[in-house]
Amino acid sequence: MGNYRIAVLPGDGIGKEVTKGAVEVLKAIETRFGHHFEFAYGWIGGAAVDQKGTPLPEETLALCRKSDAVLLGAVGGPKWDQHPPHLRPEKGLLQIRKEMNLFANLRPVKFYDSLTDSSPLKQEVIQGVDFVIVRELTGGLYFGKPSGRMVENGEEKAVDTLLYKKEEIKRIVKVAFELARKRKKKVTSVDKANVLASSRMWREIAEEVAQEFPDVTLEHMLVDNAAMQLIRSPQQFDVVVTENMFGDILSDEASMLTGSLGMLPSASLSASGPSLYEPIHGSAPDIAGQNKANPIATILSAAMMLRLSFGLSKEAEAVEKAVQQVLAAGLRTADIAQKGQRAVSTDEMVNEIKATI
Amino acid sequence: MGNYRIAVLPGDGIGKEVTKGAVEVLKAIETRFGHHFEFAYGWIGGAAVDQKGTPLPEETLALCRKSDAVLLGAVGGPKWDQHPPHLRPEKGLLQIRKEMNLFANLRPVKFYDSLTDSSPLKQEVIQGVDFVIVRELTGGLYFGKPSGRMVENGEEKAVDTLLYKKEEIKRIVKVAFELARKRKKKVTSVDKANVLASSRMWREIAEEVAQEFPDVTLEHMLVDNAAMQLIRSPQQFDVVVTENMFGDILSDEASMLTGSLGMLPSASLSASGPSLYEPIHGSAPDIAGQNKANPIATILSAAMMLRLSFGLSKEAEAVEKAVQQVLAAGLRTADIAQKGQRAVSTDEMVNEIKATI
Ligand SMILES: CC(C)[C@H](C(=O)O)[C@@H](O)C(=O)O
Ligand SMILES: CC(C)[C@H](C(=O)O)[C@@H](O)C(=O)O
Repeated sequence: MGNYRIAVLPGDGIGKEVTKGAVEVLKAIETRFGHHFEFAYGWIGGAAVDQKGTPLPEETLALCRKSDAVLLGAVGGPKWDQHPPHLRPEKGLLQIRKEMNLFANLRPVKFYDSLTDSSPLKQEVIQGVDFVIVRELTGGLYFGKPSGRMVENGEEKAVDTLLYKKEEIKRIVKVAFELARKRKKKVTSVDKANVLASSRMWREIAEEVAQEFPDVTLEHMLVDNAAMQLIRSPQQFDVVVTENMFGDILSDEASMLTGSLGMLPSASLSASGPSLYEPIHGSAPDIAGQNKANPIATILSAAMMLRLSFGLSKEAEAVEKAVQQVLAAGLRTADIAQKGQRAVSTDEMVNEIKATI
Repeated sequence: MGNYRIAVLPGDGIGKEVTKGAVEVLKAIETRFGHHFEFAYGWIGGAAVDQKGTPLPEETLALCRKSDAVLLGAVGGPKWDQHPPHLRPEKGLLQIRKEMNLFANLRPVKFYDSLTDSSPLKQEVIQGVDFVIVRELTGGLYFGKPSGRMVENGEEKAVDTLLYKKEEIKRIVKVAFELARKRKKKVTSVDKANVLASSRMWREIAEEVAQEFPDVTLEHMLVDNAAMQLIRSPQQFDVVVTENMFGDILSDEASMLTGSLGMLPSASLSASGPSLYEPIHGSAPDIAGQNKANPIATILSAAMMLRLSFGLSKEAEAVEKAVQQVLAAGLRTADIAQKGQRAVSTDEMVNEIKATI
């Protein structure tokens, strides 16, 4: 029985609905296992711009830093699309990742037997898929300087910088190897070493780190090939580790193996403080406020929080099993419902999961 | 009846076999339509490193420049993987793209009815897919400076630079719009404008260019979402335009819609001289020299050459129809053969296509 402080940052769009759902599920866990969770709310993203004039207010950051873990919904929406870069909702997300040192983004991709109909891929391709994408989250093109516009000799240009320090690569590759050691003992390191200098360094460091893990197999794969292999034979993967932008692209692609972005949770581990948990989907402005969003990705993110931040494995499993059971029972939100199947609301899905816990 | 000079650069691995096949098919076209094709061969890639000490010898470049079009196989292989960057096979490919100003890489993705079994995607998802990826080929992370390794304050770093000039974006987006005008009149511009400065400029310029094409619809899509949409509902696309690295990743992913990389041709159009045609697959060292490779991607690249460089539409169609017919008749190389189906050799596939022409 423990006491845990959880910072909840609903953000924008469906972020509010899905975090609400996950908090309710956490409360069900509280009751059943006799823990005490203290929830404190903060602004982030477009909502923070509207309320506080900045996508990541100081007080939100302070709140997160003194919490044991952070649960985040999603940020962004057309309302803020024309804002200057520093007032865009996404900036809040990038800043919190950087400020809290959330360098390791874990994105598990797991096949659900009951959802084969929702995937665009053939059943024999996705059957048994179970891997984790470990995405570097605080480096690369997302943060490298210079980044901006300029005029040179009368010519307009724009530039972004893909920069990695050796230590940044080392620590993320280590996370991948440590994870693989507890799983199927295979790491696939994805890069573009035939073109990029940063990828060639990445590959070297991956080889170096591999020396410390003789029990784990390391394989290198070019990012273009990886984009193909992910849908061609996803069963080959155990732990995939890659830099920030490649990880962004490949993990959204991989979400289709499970049928919907609405299913995929993530954990962003910090090098120095509390970790953050968020669904990999966005704020889906088109369905926001309609009680239609799939809360499962956020609920599974909360389960990752229980396991990774609080060490509550039994509790995490209780959540995961409940999700599996309601899916097996045929409950479907709109994103994963097949033609002819009744789609339940966000609330109905949450209630059913709570009841199952 | 025309005279055309074709530079053939087989390159490495299966590059030799597949270009040989495509040349034979072009000869069949010569005979049937009474043209004269003059083939001249040049070294590129690892083979050029071995023969001439550099992945793109001057004489190869000279040969290409005085030809009407270039047909390329593929480059690369484990033999040269440990070479320093300037002696890597891929460098030859990147150099020829840059030197010949091959800025617009067209990668058509077309569904073949007879191949639905080979795709990892469900038939209803890929049915009727017909789009073109227009990839920028001479800018972005592939060529931006600085690119390299450095030590700063005792810390090892590596950097690559994503740089675009306004004019570079303008001309590639124009190619996409012009193409869309002759097709289904829709351009999807893929970027990462919520993070990258270069993408925000890209988006602005796309909007500008769109003004000149009021009959064509422009839509923007974030690259992570595009990676998902490509397999979720690929029928939505007509012309997809994107920067170099995103195009590399997305087009390999898209190849799975047709079941195999071995099916996808490409044309690289020059801003100033002859264009280059190459399959999008690599040199496949694992099956090189075994008479197993699928020559169709290269043969369809030759068809694109006939149409785009020589204006020979009827001849191009004859090739494309022949490919369709042999596929419909059940002929399959190993990459597209289903369990239990007999796989034919490269030669058999080529002969059958020739015979059909
Ligand atoms: C919203 C955006 C900045 C973000 C990213 O690119 O990292 C999102 O796509 C994600 O994957 O978490
Ligand atoms: C071989 C490699 C340099 C090349 C690229 O990345 O452009 C290839 O993957 C391609 O797509 O033509």
